[in-house]
Amino acid sequence: MTDDRGPAVQQFYPDDVAHCYGCGRLNPQGLRIETRWDGEETVARFVPRPEHTALPGFVYGGLIASLIDCHAMGTAAAAAERARGRAIGDGPAPRFVTASLRVDYLAPTPHGPELEVRARAVEVGERKVLVRATVAAAGVVTARGEVVAVRMPASMDRAPRP
Amino acid sequence: MTDDRGPAVQQFYPDDVAHCYGCGRLNPQGLRIETRWDGEETVARFVPRPEHTALPGFVYGGLIASLIDCHAMGTAAAAAERARGRAIGDGPAPRFVTASLRVDYLAPTPHGPELEVRARAVEVGERKVLVRATVAAAGVVTARGEVVAVRMPASMDRAPRP
Repeated sequence: MTDDRGPAVQQFYPDDVAHCYGCGRLNPQGLRIETRWDGEETVARFVPRPEHTALPGFVYGGLIASLIDCHAMGTAAAAAERARGRAIGDGPAPRFVTASLRVDYLAPTPHGPELEVRARAVEVGERKVLVRATVAAAGVVTARGEVVAVRMPASMDRAPRP
Repeated sequence: MTDDRGPAVQQFYPDDVAHCYGCGRLNPQGLRIETRWDGEETVARFVPRPEHTALPGFVYGGLIASLIDCHAMGTAAAAAERARGRAIGDGPAPRFVTASLRVDYLAPTPHGPELEVRARAVEVGERKVLVRATVAAAGVVTARGEVVAVRMPASMDRAPRP
């Protein structure tokens, strides 16, 4: 049994940086990806919309890249907090952005089942976190990702932080 | 001056594989990315929708990955045809799928201007094409991509080919 129904990182992004198309809780058109701890890993679950097709019957690769990307940013935030002894929800979550994203598509991803995205922060620095992720459909891993997350630079920050 | 208003590769994907969320002309909710030759390069242009935000004011990285992904598949198809002495529109375009995708985000991409995605097929094999791409906003390159495209495997092909 997994215990992955705790709070999601994205619920604790400050309001002014919670509009991401992939994972912002304040983006009504977005995907609303949510990242939760499950032991030493994180997990996100997502059911592709009917229009998220690549070839008929298979999930669009750009969606898979998006799931990996946003879940990796959430994982970086959760891992950075855990490294400081803090749990999700102990305060505002730190906001990371993507420096690089690599996705290997191992097999076509069937369209229909809920996708399970799992990730681990394999290197956690003060400014940079390296995340590895998998995407699985019906228990079969169909894609792997490696993502470099960096703290949101001041140049992207349009609001004063408390 | 560039001359990039010729036919788009995606107009010539066979109907039964023209539903891709990123570039399928038969996906009404999709992004409808279009790939055209511009000399030795290919180009695609796209104006992000209002909801395609990362942090406010900047374009969602998953969208940038999607633009690079689909434009690279279109570039692979166009390059494979050109290697056989054929132009876009001389017949149905061959369908490639993504084996791997790497995106380096060099700078935040401002939300507002039309994005210009440029690509080159740097290795064109019978089964595999390596594509390098850039994304620029207002003339500034903000992301680079490297994509391995492979011919659609028979396992993804649900219709008999003529």
